[in-house]
Amino acid sequence: MKKHTTRHRVTYKETDQMGVVYYANYLVWFEIARTEYFREKGLVYKTLEDERRIYLPVAEAGCRYKAPSRYDDIVSISTWISEKGSSRMTFSYEVDVSGKVIATGFTKHAFINSSGKPIPIPDDIRYILE
Amino acid sequence: MKKHTTRHRVTYKETDQMGVVYYANYLVWFEIARTEYFREKGLVYKTLEDERRIYLPVAEAGCRYKAPSRYDDIVSISTWISEKGSSRMTFSYEVDVSGKVIATGFTKHAFINSSGKPIPIPDDIRYILE
Amino acid sequence: MKKHTTRHRVTYKETDQMGVVYYANYLVWFEIARTEYFREKGLVYKTLEDERRIYLPVAEAGCRYKAPSRYDDIVSISTWISEKGSSRMTFSYEVDVSGKVIATGFTKHAFINSSGKPIPIPDDIRYILE
Amino acid sequence: MKKHTTRHRVTYKETDQMGVVYYANYLVWFEIARTEYFREKGLVYKTLEDERRIYLPVAEAGCRYKAPSRYDDIVSISTWISEKGSSRMTFSYEVDVSGKVIATGFTKHAFINSSGKPIPIPDDIRYILE
Repeated sequence: MKKHTTRHRVTYKETDQMGVVYYANYLVWFEIARTEYFREKGLVYKTLEDERRIYLPVAEAGCRYKAPSRYDDIVSISTWISEKGSSRMTFSYEVDVSGKVIATGFTKHAFINSSGKPIPIPDDIRYILE
Repeated sequence: MKKHTTRHRVTYKETDQMGVVYYANYLVWFEIARTEYFREKGLVYKTLEDERRIYLPVAEAGCRYKAPSRYDDIVSISTWISEKGSSRMTFSYEVDVSGKVIATGFTKHAFINSSGKPIPIPDDIRYILE
Repeated sequence: MKKHTTRHRVTYKETDQMGVVYYANYLVWFEIARTEYFREKGLVYKTLEDERRIYLPVAEAGCRYKAPSRYDDIVSISTWISEKGSSRMTFSYEVDVSGKVIATGFTKHAFINSSGKPIPIPDDIRYILE
Repeated sequence: MKKHTTRHRVTYKETDQMGVVYYANYLVWFEIARTEYFREKGLVYKTLEDERRIYLPVAEAGCRYKAPSRYDDIVSISTWISEKGSSRMTFSYEVDVSGKVIATGFTKHAFINSSGKPIPIPDDIRYILE
């Protein structure tokens, strides 16, 4: 359970009239975090799609919002693989601002091919993500 | 458990390069659906904020994606209140395209005042939403 | 220069912490407006892409913001074709709330094929949009 | 005319089904670029709003799209002040990927106070941005 942490500066675009980040944007941060997690492991998700025609659509996502984040905050999104099946994988996320956890979440992904059929997680990917 | 249904036409903006709607957008549809649910009950959420200084931030959200939705689809988002506490409320959602359920989800909300303090659900609101 | 008008209810998502709609969202409304313009003319843009492999990427866009729009407003986006070349077309837009013009804008589009090459506007499309 | 350059990694969220970045997102990048421009000059835009109640809404925006950008690209957004009036200011932008200019644009801003009234650009800000 090695964590990887990505930082993101909150944009004006991401705020809403309550003066805080709109809730759906946390799922975008999760996307950024898992892309960078892959990259750190030597796996470029773009290459997975472009060259190997392997896709990881989201099958389920969830987020608990404990405290708001605001414009210009630097949020740190930590991510790790919390579950791994034969053709599925779950990422967990923890978002913090100045060391305080403001949200936690997860995304479950299926591994599919270009026809949308589930495929087993390829061995090399499984190995890298171990 | 009366349901309310809202229809939404999928925009190009909401798609991603996988050719389907990006997962975070479902949470935006949930927002649209609960706003219209309130409106149908005679409660305008905007008025709640503007005139009564009552806010319903999201404390938790989740979504299961069963099948994709695509550009120009008309999605129907059904919503109902699935849980009601003293100062919290849960909305459940079901998204379908052409009669097929493609996603289900929920959002849990706290009732707070303009200082961010939890408040009991006001009686008139509780009554209307009964 | 026949205009077509589309209505859109402003979502919470579209607001920012200034309490008004974030400026980039007007370009999304333009997209919605031109899709509906096409539909009214009997042209489904989705079909254009899916069946005829004709695409209309945006080559240029602009917007003047005269007054803000706010959460829950119903905005009316009027659109018309303001310029038509051999392989290019310009849409103009006017956004109003309660009869007051709050923004005007335009988008210039190229007609391209699936390899990204410019193509002449097909005769039937030209005819329909006349 | 000193330029400032900000880098941004294109997210999956920003792509659309054409496989490229959706056009409205360039305006979000412009926002990021001018925020960082201000920061480099020692001006934190957030502080301007929070402490001095000075706001810079967008009065006009435009963008020319020369070539697409794609998922996982690193885009560099260069920005500079191209025009300065007594209470208005224009930012110009140039977006490039791997050294190739893919888009240019601008945003015109009014300086307003918390009641929405135009104000002259404060001297210290004018001085800093000189």
